[in-house]
Amino acid sequence: MSYFDAASAAPLHPVARQALLASLDDGWADPARLHREGRKARLLLDAAREAAAEAVGCRADEVVFTASGTRAVHTGVAGVLAGRRRVGRHLIVSAVEHSSVLHSAEAFEAEGGEVTRVAVNRAGAVDPSAYAAALRPDSALACLQSANHEVGTVQPVAEVAGACRAAGVPLLVDAAQSLGWGPVGGDWSLLAASAHKWGGPPGVGLLVVRKGVRFAAQGPVDERESGRAPGFENIPAVVAAVASLRAVRAEAAQEAARLRELTERIRARVPRLVPDVEVVGDPERRLPGIVTFSCLYADGEALLHELDRAGFSVSSGSSCTSSTLTPSHVLKAMGVLSEGNVRVSLPPGAAEEDVERFLDVLPAAVAGVREKLGAPAPAVRARSEELVVDSLGKRCPIPVIELAKVIGEVPVGGTVRVLSDDEAARLDIPAWCQMRGQEYVGEEPAEQGTAYLVRRTG
Amino acid sequence: MSYFDAASAAPLHPVARQALLASLDDGWADPARLHREGRKARLLLDAAREAAAEAVGCRADEVVFTASGTRAVHTGVAGVLAGRRRVGRHLIVSAVEHSSVLHSAEAFEAEGGEVTRVAVNRAGAVDPSAYAAALRPDSALACLQSANHEVGTVQPVAEVAGACRAAGVPLLVDAAQSLGWGPVGGDWSLLAASAHKWGGPPGVGLLVVRKGVRFAAQGPVDERESGRAPGFENIPAVVAAVASLRAVRAEAAQEAARLRELTERIRARVPRLVPDVEVVGDPERRLPGIVTFSCLYADGEALLHELDRAGFSVSSGSSCTSSTLTPSHVLKAMGVLSEGNVRVSLPPGAAEEDVERFLDVLPAAVAGVREKLGAPAPAVRARSEELVVDSLGKRCPIPVIELAKVIGEVPVGGTVRVLSDDEAARLDIPAWCQMRGQEYVGEEPAEQGTAYLVRRTG
Repeated sequence: MSYFDAASAAPLHPVARQALLASLDDGWADPARLHREGRKARLLLDAAREAAAEAVGCRADEVVFTASGTRAVHTGVAGVLAGRRRVGRHLIVSAVEHSSVLHSAEAFEAEGGEVTRVAVNRAGAVDPSAYAAALRPDSALACLQSANHEVGTVQPVAEVAGACRAAGVPLLVDAAQSLGWGPVGGDWSLLAASAHKWGGPPGVGLLVVRKGVRFAAQGPVDERESGRAPGFENIPAVVAAVASLRAVRAEAAQEAARLRELTERIRARVPRLVPDVEVVGDPERRLPGIVTFSCLYADGEALLHELDRAGFSVSSGSSCTSSTLTPSHVLKAMGVLSEGNVRVSLPPGAAEEDVERFLDVLPAAVAGVREKLGAPAPAVRARSEELVVDSLGKRCPIPVIELAKVIGEVPVGGTVRVLSDDEAARLDIPAWCQMRGQEYVGEEPAEQGTAYLVRRTG
Repeated sequence: MSYFDAASAAPLHPVARQALLASLDDGWADPARLHREGRKARLLLDAAREAAAEAVGCRADEVVFTASGTRAVHTGVAGVLAGRRRVGRHLIVSAVEHSSVLHSAEAFEAEGGEVTRVAVNRAGAVDPSAYAAALRPDSALACLQSANHEVGTVQPVAEVAGACRAAGVPLLVDAAQSLGWGPVGGDWSLLAASAHKWGGPPGVGLLVVRKGVRFAAQGPVDERESGRAPGFENIPAVVAAVASLRAVRAEAAQEAARLRELTERIRARVPRLVPDVEVVGDPERRLPGIVTFSCLYADGEALLHELDRAGFSVSSGSSCTSSTLTPSHVLKAMGVLSEGNVRVSLPPGAAEEDVERFLDVLPAAVAGVREKLGAPAPAVRARSEELVVDSLGKRCPIPVIELAKVIGEVPVGGTVRVLSDDEAARLDIPAWCQMRGQEYVGEEPAEQGTAYLVRRTG
């Protein structure tokens, strides 16, 4: 089995395992206690905090250990929004942040805050000047990920941090996907990360709050972790998390070059091996281990199962994954195809031969899924120069498959009207037009669902 | 070294260690993913939830795993207060709850809620009818610990739960200290607990919310753990926590009887071995492993250091511990002596010979601390039938020591006026009077600090 889903969670690093075992013996006691066991635990915690600070590039007393990266983000966002409440009630995020940031923003809106979501380009990156333009005198906080979790695109954090600093607005960087590869550059104010992304154990997040940032911890008071992370400290896991961070950092430069070459192979070869594929994300400014592509006329969930059977664990931001029927907000914001989406995220140490084998099995896996889906003949009713495809009640990627089947039946200049009530069609029909060089005319409300108009241009 | 501070944190149970190691291999992936590793993790999590539910006596879908017992309490209290906001804004707690409950109550007050703190008797227990009398039509939630963490007194949970049920008010039981010994009886609505108290790893709390309780999770939405505990699940630790709970439960009846006999020895012999000691907490309705006593004219922190040097790790609720200068709220609510306080909490497996050795070294440890503190002669100024002891600027237990030194110098019926600016004196001077059979007349404001009046009665 080849595990290519490191961006969700990485297996425990051997160094983390060793550190965890050792500190389960020495670090289980309450570090607030004065007895021998308490003092031992306190020493371990202090040393881990120093080491984490060194890896991040901050002061030890700026580091707070939380129970997860999500908690780090929730705590960081809520703490600054409350601490700077007098400045204003405006929050800036990019449109492609992790759900922990976006859900924090929604919670803020529900309390009457105002949120600006900065758009991204087709590669998934924000434009620093567009981000800077969103800064206002009443902006309490700005958030930007260091790199995107679904497509691997690296964000211009240093430029955005500079603009935020100039405007006096603290920038919170969600560094969950990149911290294992190196410190985040630029003059940011807060940073959040998650240990299980770099081979640490689950149960450890990192929140860094630079001195000078106005911060008001929310919820009941608790004296642990500078009052910013209530509850008994998970010292064995913290020690293991930091040990793992140091271990992956020691190998980061070499491993990044190796994985970048492997993902570059996937980027280059998938479009040649599989017809009708769009590789998404920035080809240059990207994380070493992540590559994402979308396959027209395929269903992401079926593709995952097909690849799982072939021995590969990947994930999908498709609209068709089981947990949700709305397409990935990241792919949507980028304006790229979401159907048949596959994210390959290689863990450090991923073997070249496994990547080659993945490239071997992928074409048949996609073809198999497409074949299963390709069967239903679309219901076609002629209406002068226009064909109507009734895809009501059908889920992605069926509407696009039916559109593709009939586009040849209208003359050049004629239009196809696709009726669909699947939310994914709104994203995937324009994306198909762009890939196929057909003209997307627009959408209009229909008696049921929505009508999407496509004009045949060639 | 003998570790007698299990009520703070218990060392990892060998079964928990084994389960943790096994599930670090199988349970590190994201259980929301569809691939093999994700499905394995999901299976482990589901099995752990079933086993936890069985141990608690609830349905599996009522169990939420949190990152700590403190988080479980914070989440449970906030969720019910929000979910039942329309019922009213009144919360009931006992005066001797864990700080996580009391801090939740303070946060609620800060938002305009009203809190009733039900008093306890000198043994630390609430009176069920007094608790029931606090229930009101606008009560949104009531909280009661199953047993007290500082003195071990077991609370009448079943009676209080019955009264709450009759009034239609959900009862949250903080079962942190007792869940390892057995399920909590009675018709409670929510339950919180903490795995590291029963030999599980740190990083795992348990929140049970019975079906039918109106609950509105606070903070940004997150789909994990029924939307009640955001962040990546810590499956290896959850599996280890539940394995440990089952293991300690299997030995609970036998081990409870053994530890109860050992703590009974301490209860009975400490007052004979050490002069001027008050053993606190209910002598019968108590946890098997906890015994707490306070030593007049001694300083809790100094006593901890003395015992630590002798090889014993205990804790103290004294006003003199380093982290805080106010006496334990539990001892204060009980109205018992707080100075020179020592809590012995035996972990399962504590050896009889270690307890005997503790009883051997205790008298010298207390005598040594008392000797160091006993030196300063009080400044005495005569004022007719009254002596004034100026203890301004002196910390507990000095004011009581000085009072004890001069009480013989006034005639029977005369008074001693102790001037003190130490908050602990408010608790310890009346407690001394009760122990010594002297009359505590009351306090009045003084030019500096407070004057405490004591009348010599014999």
